[in-house]
Amino acid sequence: MRKRSRRAFLSATVLATASTVVAQPLLGINSPSLLIHQVFFWLKNPGSVNDRKQLSEGLKKLAAIPEIKQLYVGFPANTEKREVVDNSWDVSEVMFFSDVTAQKTYQDHPLHQAFIQQYAHLWQRVVVYDTLTVG
Amino acid sequence: MRKRSRRAFLSATVLATASTVVAQPLLGINSPSLLIHQVFFWLKNPGSVNDRKQLSEGLKKLAAIPEIKQLYVGFPANTEKREVVDNSWDVSEVMFFSDVTAQKTYQDHPLHQAFIQQYAHLWQRVVVYDTLTVG
Repeated sequence: MRKRSRRAFLSATVLATASTVVAQPLLGINSPSLLIHQVFFWLKNPGSVNDRKQLSEGLKKLAAIPEIKQLYVGFPANTEKREVVDNSWDVSEVMFFSDVTAQKTYQDHPLHQAFIQQYAHLWQRVVVYDTLTVG
Repeated sequence: MRKRSRRAFLSATVLATASTVVAQPLLGINSPSLLIHQVFFWLKNPGSVNDRKQLSEGLKKLAAIPEIKQLYVGFPANTEKREVVDNSWDVSEVMFFSDVTAQKTYQDHPLHQAFIQQYAHLWQRVVVYDTLTVG
């Protein structure tokens, strides 16, 4: 990418993603695939607005871990109720990594370990899905 | 955004996301939140390379639906086996929409309905998580 375009792209990306917690621009040009780490939390106090807020704030702080290319934190959306839709959880995170190795580095990172120490008392159940994207 | 920057951004985005199926640039500047539609498929023939390929190719075609801002299709990643990690599924999709309304438009879109008609015989179970991101 030419320097000028790259600068414009980075600047535009910062603007475009202002509503999310972004550690780095979303995608590396040389990434043939990406690791999407998707986590769903069920609170010990289901539906607690306060606990939901606490946990989501804790998750956003993980953006400081450099391996995270992009981080989204969310709550169940009010989409159509269908049998296949699971909306019983309280808080979710979606993280993009370069690959399995980067996800492992994140997994063992002191900030992630500290997050677990600090917030694990809030949840009763966690389900993780790790996707390797195909081009 | 100025026209010049916008053009550079769009062009850079196309480059940067070449490894994924992209219908539109990822984020609208005015999006205070995003709808992430996450779907996991369990095949009738678990682990079938051919069925996995068929289904993932069907999913990629959904990128033609204009409401989809970004689409990722993937398989279970070879991350560390932990009790909380569910890697029993075969194929996944992650789609970004502007909001609940856009997701509903996609849900009812003829191309999506045709996808279900054409590929539903391949799966035995589907689980959907719809996340509304928080800034």
